[in-house]
Amino acid sequence: MQKALEMAREKRSEHLNKLFEFLRIPSISTETERHPDVRRAAEWLVDQMTAAGLQEARVMETEGLPIVYGEWLEAGPDAPTVLVYGHYDVQPVDPLNLWQSQPFEPEIRGGDIYARGAVDDKGQMFAHIKAVETILASEGRVPVNLKFLFEGEEELGSPSIDAFVEEHAGLLAADSVLVSDTAFLAEGKPMLVYGLRGLTYMEILVDGPHHDLHSGAYGGTVYNPAQVLAEIIAKLHNDDATVAIPGFYDRVRELSETDREAAAQVDYPVTQWQQETGMDKPWGEAGYSLIERRGGRPTCEVNGIWGGYSGEGGKTIIPAHAGAKISMRLVPDQDPDEIAQLFADFIPTIAPEHVRVTVNKLSGGWPSITPIDSPEMKAAAAALQAVWGVPPVFSREGGSIPVISTFQKVLGASAVLMGFGLPGSKMHAPNEHFKEDHYYKAIEAIIHYYHNLAG
Amino acid sequence: MQKALEMAREKRSEHLNKLFEFLRIPSISTETERHPDVRRAAEWLVDQMTAAGLQEARVMETEGLPIVYGEWLEAGPDAPTVLVYGHYDVQPVDPLNLWQSQPFEPEIRGGDIYARGAVDDKGQMFAHIKAVETILASEGRVPVNLKFLFEGEEELGSPSIDAFVEEHAGLLAADSVLVSDTAFLAEGKPMLVYGLRGLTYMEILVDGPHHDLHSGAYGGTVYNPAQVLAEIIAKLHNDDATVAIPGFYDRVRELSETDREAAAQVDYPVTQWQQETGMDKPWGEAGYSLIERRGGRPTCEVNGIWGGYSGEGGKTIIPAHAGAKISMRLVPDQDPDEIAQLFADFIPTIAPEHVRVTVNKLSGGWPSITPIDSPEMKAAAAALQAVWGVPPVFSREGGSIPVISTFQKVLGASAVLMGFGLPGSKMHAPNEHFKEDHYYKAIEAIIHYYHNLAG
Repeated sequence: MQKALEMAREKRSEHLNKLFEFLRIPSISTETERHPDVRRAAEWLVDQMTAAGLQEARVMETEGLPIVYGEWLEAGPDAPTVLVYGHYDVQPVDPLNLWQSQPFEPEIRGGDIYARGAVDDKGQMFAHIKAVETILASEGRVPVNLKFLFEGEEELGSPSIDAFVEEHAGLLAADSVLVSDTAFLAEGKPMLVYGLRGLTYMEILVDGPHHDLHSGAYGGTVYNPAQVLAEIIAKLHNDDATVAIPGFYDRVRELSETDREAAAQVDYPVTQWQQETGMDKPWGEAGYSLIERRGGRPTCEVNGIWGGYSGEGGKTIIPAHAGAKISMRLVPDQDPDEIAQLFADFIPTIAPEHVRVTVNKLSGGWPSITPIDSPEMKAAAAALQAVWGVPPVFSREGGSIPVISTFQKVLGASAVLMGFGLPGSKMHAPNEHFKEDHYYKAIEAIIHYYHNLAG
Repeated sequence: MQKALEMAREKRSEHLNKLFEFLRIPSISTETERHPDVRRAAEWLVDQMTAAGLQEARVMETEGLPIVYGEWLEAGPDAPTVLVYGHYDVQPVDPLNLWQSQPFEPEIRGGDIYARGAVDDKGQMFAHIKAVETILASEGRVPVNLKFLFEGEEELGSPSIDAFVEEHAGLLAADSVLVSDTAFLAEGKPMLVYGLRGLTYMEILVDGPHHDLHSGAYGGTVYNPAQVLAEIIAKLHNDDATVAIPGFYDRVRELSETDREAAAQVDYPVTQWQQETGMDKPWGEAGYSLIERRGGRPTCEVNGIWGGYSGEGGKTIIPAHAGAKISMRLVPDQDPDEIAQLFADFIPTIAPEHVRVTVNKLSGGWPSITPIDSPEMKAAAAALQAVWGVPPVFSREGGSIPVISTFQKVLGASAVLMGFGLPGSKMHAPNEHFKEDHYYKAIEAIIHYYHNLAG
């Protein structure tokens, strides 16, 4: 491994030049007129992966923008197989006038690489190509089997990736997934994301009278659909802020000691929560810290509610319809389909017979977790500590990354999210930047990771 | 009185011709280009009232379209004073192609007068001018003092009348109000409206985080404003469908035996409610019939509710804001301002401290009632029975007529709603019509009414 690390340090300027080449391609997936550039980026990547010494690298078509696939599988059947996921498309650049340098003319200022995509995700994903190239060039072989999956539609919400993964489940089969698209907790504080919440997104529609009724003529004789909806929503939580749906917690994996110790390592004072939310007083399940509530506990949230008149002044109607969007964040081992069913079963038990209540499932995704004491997490933690000199904090994030949920469900592979960004990198804003030093160290950390994982 | 009734019968064709003249004026208040016609109708009315023998008749200006005022006050200080209210503006006529005859070319077909405004309200209000004219011409004097107030903005929602009544409270002072702008229960079934509900219209605004939050990153730590709103609304009613606001029922006048007998006379089977609402199962306070619930009991209704995302698919946010429009229908002797205060006092007691809850009063109007055994109601019932041969049913309507509430509040005068329309008169639709026979009999009923009232 030392040979690889040495070569990585020697070739820094070469690695930087190639990244700049990548960053110059304006692969904005949300702008149709840039789609030729997105495709150009895919083809450029295939060339880089081939040059890096992969056994195979190719563009694969989807319904939308192409996916780049590559593999090196010579580590032998006993070595673990890692699927590296990233994306080569980038956000739009508006408003252009707020950029200090051109978004597609990368420039280094104050130790940071400024360009659209520098940190999200070109810089981080390209480190993976340079890492495998460096290992192969210096050692002739990688100690693990590697598959690469780079998509060009992440900034569009990854509309094609789920179908692609399902269709190519055999090709993509892996023991674990490695993703570099997240950030450190702070400068000098590496962080590994070891869990993501899943999601079950539902819609409740309440239908009462066949048209809006005059509230004078009918008020007091009709069970008002907006009132029914409010009463249903009010029954979704218990007074202690827990979710009232029977069976909701049955499969919830309780936080382990390790989980709680890890959560305690994440510095997140109430003052920060107050600043971010603009609210005074946190809410939620007693006995869990803010970090635990958001990462390790399931929730039920009203995302939207509507019905009747919402304009200026007053309108005296009993609305014919009312509705709400309600989503539940899930933790292992909750099953999004089962939760949808529990929800759908519960609503009729709390809805009056006066109105018609329809419950629709809009979408769902699995929660995922890669335990802190799993070989992958241990390998990643050791890699970060070797390069940065400090152990990482471990975080379970409150959000969901649908593709991670898909890998979990289709491939049975959980993910290590080893990201090298920093807070304040302006990922979707003007003046996006990636710390130059983190780009080089990312390559080294990946080299460490594969060697650690092979044991 | 017999001389007056005889003359009314003799002059039917003359009365019809004059009404036709009135109906030919396209006094559509909602269309600015028709406002000269509205003013022409006002001036035409003044001429008719002068010709009828009133002591005074004049156009009075408002911020909007003019009001026509008239009076005859020679009945002496001991005789009651009646304020007759009506409106000379009409609804628009679109869609014109659905009219079988021109809306402003009155025509009699099958015993009905077809024209825009025939029943709402020109035909009914003009009967009042012809009634006083007939009494004065045949008897030389009316047994009661009379004031007439005809507005030209009723179809606009009467934007000027409240200020006008308050400004001219002395001029308009009266013992009771008489309005003919309602309908029979059915052909051959006269109906007197003796009560109207009042209204207190409120708005609840819930403000949580300073912007919509990502429900993954913050879900489980923030008291969701849409959930708070739902929980507040759910607490507005008790399980037995009564309103849970403390003090809400304190001033409610219980239904009298007379009220309940009158309600029982109104034929309103559940099947009719089902047809009108499209719902299977009525809701509301136990122990009260549908008619009683809508006319004689106060309510609290959600007129609108909003917050967060309501479009296609899902959006994973915790909404920053949520709100609701909530109005309460009031019955005597509830005070709309007091009810607003009770509501505003109650909400903070059921809202959590996590969010900011604002309660606004949007509008209010007083309930009104003219007891069935009051001299005015007895006089009106006897008048209808004399002309139609059957006693009327008595109805308390669920809706509110703001001007009636204003007369109640400013003048202390309660109203008799003695209307001569019929259900299915297409008041706001093409082919509006008024039964020709009802126009003539309305004049006779009004003659009876004044004589009955004088005793």
